[in-house]
Amino acid sequence: MAKIILALALAAQALVPTRTALKSTNVRANARSEMTMAADGGVVLIGVAADSGCGKSTFMRRLTGIFGGTNVGPLGGGFDNGGWETNTLVSDTTTVICLDDYHLNDRGGRKVTGRTALDLAENNFDLMYEQLKELKAGNAIKKPIYNHVNGTLDTPEEITPTQIVIVEGLHPMADPRVRELLDFSLYLDITDDVKFAWKIQRDMVERGHSLESIQQSIEARKPDFDAFVAPQRGDADVVIQVLPTDLIPDEKEGKVLKVKFIQKEGKANFDPAYLFDEGSTIEWTPCGKKLTCSYPGIKFAYGPDEFLGNDVTVLEMDGKFDNLQELIYVESHLSNTATKFYGELTQQMIKMGDSPGSDNGTGTGAADRGRIATPSFRAGFFQTLASLKIREFYEKLSGVEVEVEAPAKVAA
Amino acid sequence: MAKIILALALAAQALVPTRTALKSTNVRANARSEMTMAADGGVVLIGVAADSGCGKSTFMRRLTGIFGGTNVGPLGGGFDNGGWETNTLVSDTTTVICLDDYHLNDRGGRKVTGRTALDLAENNFDLMYEQLKELKAGNAIKKPIYNHVNGTLDTPEEITPTQIVIVEGLHPMADPRVRELLDFSLYLDITDDVKFAWKIQRDMVERGHSLESIQQSIEARKPDFDAFVAPQRGDADVVIQVLPTDLIPDEKEGKVLKVKFIQKEGKANFDPAYLFDEGSTIEWTPCGKKLTCSYPGIKFAYGPDEFLGNDVTVLEMDGKFDNLQELIYVESHLSNTATKFYGELTQQMIKMGDSPGSDNGTGTGAADRGRIATPSFRAGFFQTLASLKIREFYEKLSGVEVEVEAPAKVAA
Repeated sequence: MAKIILALALAAQALVPTRTALKSTNVRANARSEMTMAADGGVVLIGVAADSGCGKSTFMRRLTGIFGGTNVGPLGGGFDNGGWETNTLVSDTTTVICLDDYHLNDRGGRKVTGRTALDLAENNFDLMYEQLKELKAGNAIKKPIYNHVNGTLDTPEEITPTQIVIVEGLHPMADPRVRELLDFSLYLDITDDVKFAWKIQRDMVERGHSLESIQQSIEARKPDFDAFVAPQRGDADVVIQVLPTDLIPDEKEGKVLKVKFIQKEGKANFDPAYLFDEGSTIEWTPCGKKLTCSYPGIKFAYGPDEFLGNDVTVLEMDGKFDNLQELIYVESHLSNTATKFYGELTQQMIKMGDSPGSDNGTGTGAADRGRIATPSFRAGFFQTLASLKIREFYEKLSGVEVEVEAPAKVAA
Repeated sequence: MAKIILALALAAQALVPTRTALKSTNVRANARSEMTMAADGGVVLIGVAADSGCGKSTFMRRLTGIFGGTNVGPLGGGFDNGGWETNTLVSDTTTVICLDDYHLNDRGGRKVTGRTALDLAENNFDLMYEQLKELKAGNAIKKPIYNHVNGTLDTPEEITPTQIVIVEGLHPMADPRVRELLDFSLYLDITDDVKFAWKIQRDMVERGHSLESIQQSIEARKPDFDAFVAPQRGDADVVIQVLPTDLIPDEKEGKVLKVKFIQKEGKANFDPAYLFDEGSTIEWTPCGKKLTCSYPGIKFAYGPDEFLGNDVTVLEMDGKFDNLQELIYVESHLSNTATKFYGELTQQMIKMGDSPGSDNGTGTGAADRGRIATPSFRAGFFQTLASLKIREFYEKLSGVEVEVEAPAKVAA
C-alpha cells in the first residue's frame, strides 16, 4: 500500500494538551499500531483547517484520544521536562503538527511585509509540501517552530513520522501539492454570526472591550480570511459548520447552536453517517414521549444536499444536550457512526469533558476559551463523530485495526 | 371474556361487494375461526363512521379481506341467487351491517318530517342498541332493511352473529349506548376542501353539473353533517383524515392528498403505528438517493399531537405512490403496522386493486366512484393499515389468531 498521511489545520494558540485527559483514555491501539511505523500501514495524513481561535486543539485532543496510544504529550517532553517550546503533540501512534510552523516570516517580518499570517504569501508551502511528503514516505524531518509567544521562528525540531500524522492550521488544503498528499481533510467552519456572538461574549461581556473594537478586529481579519482560508471548505471531505440556532428567535450569545456535519459524497473508505433511512430527507425531534428535553430541545435533520458545488450528505443538529440520557438516545438512533461499541460516542464526549448539562453539536471548544471551569459550553457531538469516522477511514485505508476497550458501563 | 362486537358505519350506496375480489384473497382464517362463533372468542364489534359517499364500502371490503374467511358475499346469496335486496355482507368470520338499515322512516316519511337521514332523530337508536347488544351476546336478530333504490324499509332479515361484526354508517358512535358496545371505532374524515374537489371533479367535470348546483348540494348537507356526524370524530379510536396536499400549491382536483392517520393514545390492545422512533416528531421524505420518485413525491410525518381534546399519535402521508417499489419501501420503514409477513400491507393494497401507478393514503375509494376502470385514483395505504391494526386488535382482544398465508413473492 502506498504511504499515506492525514492533515489537521492547527490553532495557533491553545495547542497545550492536558496530559491527564489524554492519558485517562481507555482506547488503546493494538499491538501492531504500538510501533512507530506500522509494518503494513504506512503513514496516514489528515488535514484539519479552521480559523485560529476556533478551538481546533480541542478537536485534536479528541482525535488523538480516539486513536489511542500512550506517552501522549508535547514533542520532547515539553513543559514537564523543560524542553523547547514546541507546537507538536505526539503519542506513539499520532503526531499533530501545527502548520503555523510553516509561517514564512516571524511577527517582525510580517510587520515589514504588511501581510497577515492568513495570507498565502506568508506561508512557506514549498517547505510544507517537501516535509509532509517526506513524512508520508516514512522519513524524519527537521521542521521549523513558530513561537506563538514571541512571534519568532525558533530552532527546528526533528519529527519522526508515526502511523497517523495530523496537520492542523489555517491552510492545510490551500496548496494543491499539499492537498494532494492529504488522505482525509476536515474544515471547522464557524459562521460569521457565531464568531461575532462568541467574541462579544468573551471580549465584551467578560473582558470589558467595546463593541466597536470587537467589530473592528473582526472586520480587519475578515477579508484575508475569506480570501485565503474559507475557500478550502470546498476541498474538505467533511465540513463541520456552526450556525446560529433556529430554535430560539434572536439567540445572540452563541450558546445554543445549529451545527451541520457536511459529508462529501464519493469519498473512498468513507460512508456518511445517517439518520434512520440512508439517502432520504428527514427531520427528527427526539424530544417527545420517550425522551423529555428542556427548552429549546434538540432537533436533527438529515439529507442529501449540495455544498460549494459538491454532492454532500448533511447531518444537522440544532439545540443542546441537557443530560446523558439525551446524548445516548441520539447516538443510538444514528447509523454509520463508526463506533466500536454501544455508547462509544457518548463515552468519548464524557472523557473529553463535554459533560451533558449544556451541550451542542460544535465541539469546537472555542466558546469555553478562558473558562475551563465552566463545562456548560463544552460541545463536541459532531467533532467526536468526525474523530470516529476518521478512525474508521484510517482503519480501512491502512488495514490496521485500532483496538478499543468497551467499558463495562458508560458512566457520567 | 365478555362478548364483544366491532361497528362500521356503512355507505348507503355501493355496498355491493365484488365476490371475485373477495374470494381471491389468500388470507384465510384458522380452524377455530372457521366456526360461526369462536369457542373462546365471542363477538368483536367494530364501528366505522363516515359521510355516505366517502367510499366506506371499499374499506369494508379491505377489512373483510384482511380478516379472511370463505363464502364471502351478500347475506342470503344476494344477487346471484335472486335473494332479497340486502345491505349486509357476510363471510364465515365477518358480518358487515349497514346502519342505514336503522333509519326510522323511509324516504317518503322523511319528506313528511322534513329531516335528512343525517339527523339523529331519523335513526332508531333504541332498536340499533338492542339488536347490537343481542349480536354481541351471540344471539341472532331480525334486522330491518333500508332499500337504497326505492328508499323503502323492506322485510327484516335474520342476522346470525359471526366472530367479527362490523357496523358501518353515519352514526355508529352517536348514541352513547351503542358507542359503549363498540370494541373499536374508526372515522373516515374527508375534509370539506377535498369533498368539494372530488364533487367538482365528478359532477362538474364528468357529468356537466353547474358549479352552483354542486355548491348548493354541499351546503345543503353540511349543517346536519356537522351537527350529527362530525362530532363522532372525538370518540373514534382511529380517524383517517383526508386533506389537500401541501406538496402542490393550489391542487384543486383532489388527486394528490395529505392523509392523517390519527391514533388515540391509551387504547387497550392498540399500539400506534410509528415511524423510526416511537414518541418523537419526525418528517421523512423517502424519495432521495435510494428511492427515486416522480413529482411531487411522498412526504411522511409522525408525532404526538392533540385531536379534539384527545392525546393522539399521528402518522401522516402527503403525496402518492407511483410504483410498487415506493410502496414496499415505505412499508418496510414503518413500525407497529401489525403485518404478519414482510410486505403484507403492500400485498393487501395490490389485492384490493390499489395498483401503484398513482396512489395516495386515503383508501376511501370515493375518488374513483364511477371510474372503476381508472385505477389511478385507487388509494388505501392508511385504510389498509387500519385494517391490519384492527385485525391485531381483534386477535389481542379475542385470543383468536387470524392465520394468513405469506406468498412466496409479492407480485404486482
